[in-house]
Amino acid sequence: MKIIIGSDHRGVGHKSFIVEYLKSQSIEVFDVGCHPDVKVDYPDVVQAFAKKMYEDLDNNIGIILCGSGIGVSIAINRYKHLRGAVVYNEEVAHTSREHNNANVICLGADFTSYEHTLEYVTIFLKGVFEGGRHQVRVNALAKLGD
Amino acid sequence: MKIIIGSDHRGVGHKSFIVEYLKSQSIEVFDVGCHPDVKVDYPDVVQAFAKKMYEDLDNNIGIILCGSGIGVSIAINRYKHLRGAVVYNEEVAHTSREHNNANVICLGADFTSYEHTLEYVTIFLKGVFEGGRHQVRVNALAKLGD
Repeated sequence: MKIIIGSDHRGVGHKSFIVEYLKSQSIEVFDVGCHPDVKVDYPDVVQAFAKKMYEDLDNNIGIILCGSGIGVSIAINRYKHLRGAVVYNEEVAHTSREHNNANVICLGADFTSYEHTLEYVTIFLKGVFEGGRHQVRVNALAKLGD
Repeated sequence: MKIIIGSDHRGVGHKSFIVEYLKSQSIEVFDVGCHPDVKVDYPDVVQAFAKKMYEDLDNNIGIILCGSGIGVSIAINRYKHLRGAVVYNEEVAHTSREHNNANVICLGADFTSYEHTLEYVTIFLKGVFEGGRHQVRVNALAKLGD
């Protein structure tokens, strides 16, 4: 497992905090930006992030942040092989992996403390997709779109 | 403005509650299902919902529910002209309209009381997109995807 991480300017503090934590756990992490003191548009960050995720979809797990998590989640889910979950509590951190097979956790930096961020990320990374009736639904996602 | 509403079996109670409220306010609402006591896969509901939304994208606003809001939001954002926001507090109900120009509110029935549901829906429906720097970002979403 390799972690791809990105954020717009609103999430950059949280991003640094998560990166430090992951490195302290000897987890491999690739940071696509943005860098502190740079203002960026979230679709541009997501474009770079998605490109990196697509390099190894079987093994990459993504973490992406903006102010509310909404902008990045809309952008992430434009990509057919990404399933981005706006995680707003511990239970959703679980079920988004176990039921939705999400491979990207989308976080709202304005509404999630550093401590909750780590809790959600930790739960998300440990989660295992349950398959079964949920596999039918995840397969059906591939039919959707314009 | 016309409201399109849908849910899987987990959100059907909330859906009925919202529909009754909207009708009491003389707001036009079209319910794509599911119906009580029917179990459905959320991608199938979203497919019917998206078709209805696309009939009049300039005037339709959508409300969609599943257990966590995550499954439906992944599915909704597969469609280029839909911007689905997982609304988990009042502030996000505001900003998802004002900043992200979301046209679908995605709600997690398992984690949102009936009262909060109405609050979020009411704020969302009243919200107005701010444009400006946010317009640049919403336009950039159109570049994204496989």
